Amino acid sequence: MSLTVVGSIAFDSVKTPFGERDRMLGGTAVHFSLAASFFTDVRPVGPVGEDFGPAELAVLENRGVHTGDIEQVAGGRSFFWRGRYEYDLNIAHTEDTQLGVFGEFEPKLSPESQDAEVVFLANIQPDLQRRVRAQCGAARFCALDSMNLWIETARDSLLAAIAEVDCVIVNDAEIRQLTGESNLARAARAVMERGPRAVVAKQGEYGAALFTEQSFFALPGFPLEDVRDPTGAGDSFAGGFLGYLDSHDGDLDEPVLRRAMGYGTVLASFNVEDFGTERVARLSREEIDERFEALHAMTQFEPLPVR
Amino acid sequence: MSLTVVGSIAFDSVKTPFGERDRMLGGTAVHFSLAASFFTDVRPVGPVGEDFGPAELAVLENRGVHTGDIEQVAGGRSFFWRGRYEYDLNIAHTEDTQLGVFGEFEPKLSPESQDAEVVFLANIQPDLQRRVRAQCGAARFCALDSMNLWIETARDSLLAAIAEVDCVIVNDAEIRQLTGESNLARAARAVMERGPRAVVAKQGEYGAALFTEQSFFALPGFPLEDVRDPTGAGDSFAGGFLGYLDSHDGDLDEPVLRRAMGYGTVLASFNVEDFGTERVARLSREEIDERFEALHAMTQFEPLPVR
Repeated sequence: MSLTVVGSIAFDSVKTPFGERDRMLGGTAVHFSLAASFFTDVRPVGPVGEDFGPAELAVLENRGVHTGDIEQVAGGRSFFWRGRYEYDLNIAHTEDTQLGVFGEFEPKLSPESQDAEVVFLANIQPDLQRRVRAQCGAARFCALDSMNLWIETARDSLLAAIAEVDCVIVNDAEIRQLTGESNLARAARAVMERGPRAVVAKQGEYGAALFTEQSFFALPGFPLEDVRDPTGAGDSFAGGFLGYLDSHDGDLDEPVLRRAMGYGTVLASFNVEDFGTERVARLSREEIDERFEALHAMTQFEPLPVR
Repeated sequence: MSLTVVGSIAFDSVKTPFGERDRMLGGTAVHFSLAASFFTDVRPVGPVGEDFGPAELAVLENRGVHTGDIEQVAGGRSFFWRGRYEYDLNIAHTEDTQLGVFGEFEPKLSPESQDAEVVFLANIQPDLQRRVRAQCGAARFCALDSMNLWIETARDSLLAAIAEVDCVIVNDAEIRQLTGESNLARAARAVMERGPRAVVAKQGEYGAALFTEQSFFALPGFPLEDVRDPTGAGDSFAGGFLGYLDSHDGDLDEPVLRRAMGYGTVLASFNVEDFGTERVARLSREEIDERFEALHAMTQFEPLPVR
């Protein structure tokens, strides 16, 4: 039981209507790892610069995340993102992106990371995703995320990477863009025809939908009256989703995938309650279980005869 | 057990990537009535012109809709709308709107319509909604819809109308616009603080969410690979929702409201499968129940211990 994630480890400067933070710990692999850490052993793989220090490492290690595959590049700077959200938090503006050491990233997986049973290829160049995938022969479930940049500039590589994973976890607009199909159900089917047995469409505040060959399932976003910073919500979703799957010993069948959707939804909802990693860093397993039960209660209904 | 709806009866000319129709029967009260007709006695109230003939009347009467309160105005023309949808059916363009007799509409309710137990004040000028509401003293559940035009031009009247109903059924963007609150949970609460005990946020392809004082519930849109014309989906949703509520003899409590959300979702999904009223006009109760069961299966999950 262990989970490897390959992706960015970053500093984020974020401004929302509810406050701002300068150069806080962020990045896909960080949000993912913290969320997954409540379920299993997690190993993030990614490069950092000399600006990444003990304080950042401590956030991960306090949650039991294995940090041995975080590679510090001498003389380098960590990935940096600066963004701003409007009053409507669904509208984000990127103001600066500096790839730093992430621009030359060539993943090196330790034997422990290669042995992972579950692998998440976060949003990186698809050829890199494929090289990581090739190193992880023991994985029983492998998922990837991607973005419009790779759909536009490396579509063939991305399609090849997709053919090699069990699950694609992307924003619904990206599923449409990738397949050129505006109908989401058709678009998801087109993705599955290339190999994956599941497609998770992230839908922002509307939640997420799970397409499998036999079924469809959807959960709303957990309703929150206080959202402070949406950054990392999708990565936290993936962390809760795959973390739960890795913790499950038996078949990853439809009921298990649906519960994983629930944990993904719950972790994403905690992530956005505060800036960066702040909320998940102080989260407890009891809070997760409580919200999971609340989510369950919010989505169930009893079919009865009409009269 | 009877349901009155006050709203537009129209001719629609619609073009989508999957075909087009010229001057087909449409309008809020029509889509609503057809959807609700599977559950209860429905009485649409609204004006039509001399262009509204036996063929249009037959579509309603074939579904058992009571058409006595459809008022034909001598020398008048019916409400007309022309619209076009992009390849992404979520993007609609209005190309022409002619109010016709709807511009001078002053609702006149027959005693039967006034006696309705459930009333839907579809999207019309809020002062008209209030005058209809005042005539329906017997209603045990009254709901209204509205739109950005009235929020911008008759906000105080709309707020007064909202204070007099049990339920508001509007697009989520309109809840935000009405309350000036971008967080949907807060916005829904602000609406309920004015009187209604329930708020239904229609979310297009993402489905619909139900806010009550005690709870939150959401359903995804029913996944369809073939959508031909989204026109009237929201009205069909409201028809299924309120039609089911009117058919229910007991308290309209949370489990009943949730089932009603299910029927609303199902009727909306059938509506979009073909142009205008074509699909719902040939729909059967058996198909509705089958899809309701399918929707139930698509939204349920079993919470179990993690390991």
